[in-house]
This record gives sequence, structure tokens and C-alpha cells, in this order.
Amino acid sequence: MKKIAVVLSGCGVFDGSEIHEAVLILLAIDNNGAEYQCVAPNVAQRQVVNHLTQQVSDEKRNVLVESARIARGQIKDIATVSAADFDAAIFAGGFGVVTNLSDFAAEGAQCHIEAATLKFAKAMYDAKKPLGFACISPVLAAKICDTGVKLTAGEDIEVSEKLQAMGAIPENCSADNIIVDEEHKIVSTPAYMVGKGLAEIYQGIEQMVRHILLIA
Amino acid sequence: MKKIAVVLSGCGVFDGSEIHEAVLILLAIDNNGAEYQCVAPNVAQRQVVNHLTQQVSDEKRNVLVESARIARGQIKDIATVSAADFDAAIFAGGFGVVTNLSDFAAEGAQCHIEAATLKFAKAMYDAKKPLGFACISPVLAAKICDTGVKLTAGEDIEVSEKLQAMGAIPENCSADNIIVDEEHKIVSTPAYMVGKGLAEIYQGIEQMVRHILLIA
Repeated sequence: MKKIAVVLSGCGVFDGSEIHEAVLILLAIDNNGAEYQCVAPNVAQRQVVNHLTQQVSDEKRNVLVESARIARGQIKDIATVSAADFDAAIFAGGFGVVTNLSDFAAEGAQCHIEAATLKFAKAMYDAKKPLGFACISPVLAAKICDTGVKLTAGEDIEVSEKLQAMGAIPENCSADNIIVDEEHKIVSTPAYMVGKGLAEIYQGIEQMVRHILLIA
Repeated sequence: MKKIAVVLSGCGVFDGSEIHEAVLILLAIDNNGAEYQCVAPNVAQRQVVNHLTQQVSDEKRNVLVESARIARGQIKDIATVSAADFDAAIFAGGFGVVTNLSDFAAEGAQCHIEAATLKFAKAMYDAKKPLGFACISPVLAAKICDTGVKLTAGEDIEVSEKLQAMGAIPENCSADNIIVDEEHKIVSTPAYMVGKGLAEIYQGIEQMVRHILLIA
């Protein structure tokens, strides 16, 4: 049974992992007869956002602890896992990708990826294991991979320009579809970057998972 | 387009809504061409549980604010909605059902349901609109409905005995199936009360949503 690491960045679209995307990735993995292990970095969240008011709160929360909510407690610190343990890895979306897993929200094309997350992702990439990216998470791919990687972050012009500045080749894509870079083994789907609902984004996510399992 | 209220109780299996169940209910509603509105009571959580360690923390969180994470911010205080706004309502599972929406975890068969949640659920039931219950949430049905309602909370003997003490008729059911009480318009599925994974519980949840839309 193939085993996929699912990388989370907290629990909630405005300060962590986008919950629908994360759960639909897990559903697609289970539906396709593979196994998943959720992982996240054991670091403080950059911010906590009240999801009712969308205001930043003064609470302090931890990315691994909050990600554990999506994983029903079954989660590992990404610093403690090895590329050898997995056949592939998939990154969920959400604002946590650009605030907790990286500082892309503040730094754009000059962003840095959180150290343990970068180490794991690089090791997977160097081992030629497929990587999947939903929603805004392809900004990580642009940092992790060699230049010239083909990916999608939907149709957002500003994000696409930053991806180009980082050496990637962004392509437009609808929520029910995927962009595949066969050479670099990178599969991406825009999910809620363009999608309006769960049924639509599940089509893209399910295709992404199926393709990753095919090449893993 | 039929509109279903999805009642949440926080965000996380150990102190709120079970996230997988909640998201799969939303997916099934969207997949079946209906519309959803998440609702939750605007009350303090009974407790906050660190989902990594499973220890109770001293943090304070609000049920509506945390539920808003699952709803991507699109949620309403259950005290502000009316039965007239919806064709049906579905309750997700999770420990929040028995700590936030009710005190069933502490009081068992003598439990009380949170006031605004009870008022809304009673109004839906009295208007003969179908109600769906996943996982542990059928304990609410046993309080809301007349005695003699047929439902499932999986195969847990202790919970079944309490349901019987509350006047309900619990039946064993697997995670990929549903129990339907046609007379009272109550549909239930045990989800993670017995289920091992998302693919399995989605089968039961999807059937529950489909049946509710059929009779709504």
C-alpha cells in the first residue's frame, strides 16, 4: 500500500490549512486504496485569525497542535519523518502555507520555507518522489524544485507573476482539473484559488491524488 | 435548490465537531445539488483539548468562532436562524456534541441540550422537516424527538443503553450504511463511531444526505 505524507499548516483557511482541501485530500487517498500520514512543523503560528470576524486575535497557537485537529490526533512533527518513509507528499492549501510553512505572504518571490518543511520536501524531491500541491501551496514548489517547473495557482495574475519571478512556469487551471509536470513529478490543482464549492474542488484533488499514485 | 442547515459544535474531534464528518457532509450536500448553511451556538466551549497530546488545556474558545473554521467564515449563530429558512438540518459528530451542544458526556440520559440548539432543532422537528445525525449526535435526536424514534449510534452498548433510557430505539449499523425512521423523518449514520476511514464513512454520510434530500 502506497503511503502519502499530507503536509498541514494549522487548522483553518485564514491562518492554517484550508480544512475542506485537507480533508478531501485524505478522502481521495483513502478512496484510492493508499495510506496517509499527516505531518506539520512544530512551530508557532504566525498569527491566529478569528474565522467569524476575520480579525487577527492575540491568541498564540502552534501549527502542529492545531493541525492535529484535522488529523484526529494522528500526526507527526515533520522534523521527525524521513523521505524514505513515504512514496509521495501532498501539500494542502490555506493561508498557513504562506504564513506558517513559508513567509510568502510577506516576502513574495523572496520567501523562505520553514526549515524542517523545506528539508523534508527537498529530500522527497531529490529522491524523485512525486509531490502534490493544492491551492496556494504551489508557491512552495517554486522554491523547492529546480527552475522551470510547470504548476498552477489558479488564475491569479499577481501570484503567477511571483511564481515566474521564482523561476516556475505557472499555467491557468480550473478547480476540477490538474497541471502535471511529468519531468519534475509535480502535480498541482488550484482548489479554492478558483473553485466555488466542494464538489468542484474534489474533482481536481481526486485527479491529483490519482495521478500521484500512478507515478509514485 | 434545497437548503440544509449543518449544525457544528466547534472544530476538532476531541472538543468540537469531528472535522472529517463535517466536511464530508458539506461535500455530499454540494455533490447532490443542494445548498448548505453552517450554524453553531454562540457559547463557550466546555473545554479545549490539545489534539496532539489529548490533554485538556486551559485555553478558552468559543463554539461559533471555532466552528467558523470549518465553514470558511460563512456561518450563522444558530439563535438567529429559523426553521422556515431550511428544508432539513444535519448534525455532525465529535465530542463537542456531548460537551457543547449538550451535556450528554457528563449527564448521560439526563442530559440537556444547549438552549438555542434545542429551540432550532425542535422547530425543525415540529415542522416535520427531516433531521440527519452522524456519529454520536443521535443522542440529541433522542432528546429532541418523541419517544420511539429509531436511530443508530453504531454498536456501542453503553451509548445504546442510554439512548434506550431516553426512549429511543437504537439499532446497530455499519459506517457505510444508514438507519431511517420514516415516520419521524430521522436519518442517522454511525460514521467514526464504528468507521475506520474516510472512504467508508463517506458512504454512510452520502446515503444520509441523499435520503434527507429525497424526503425534504
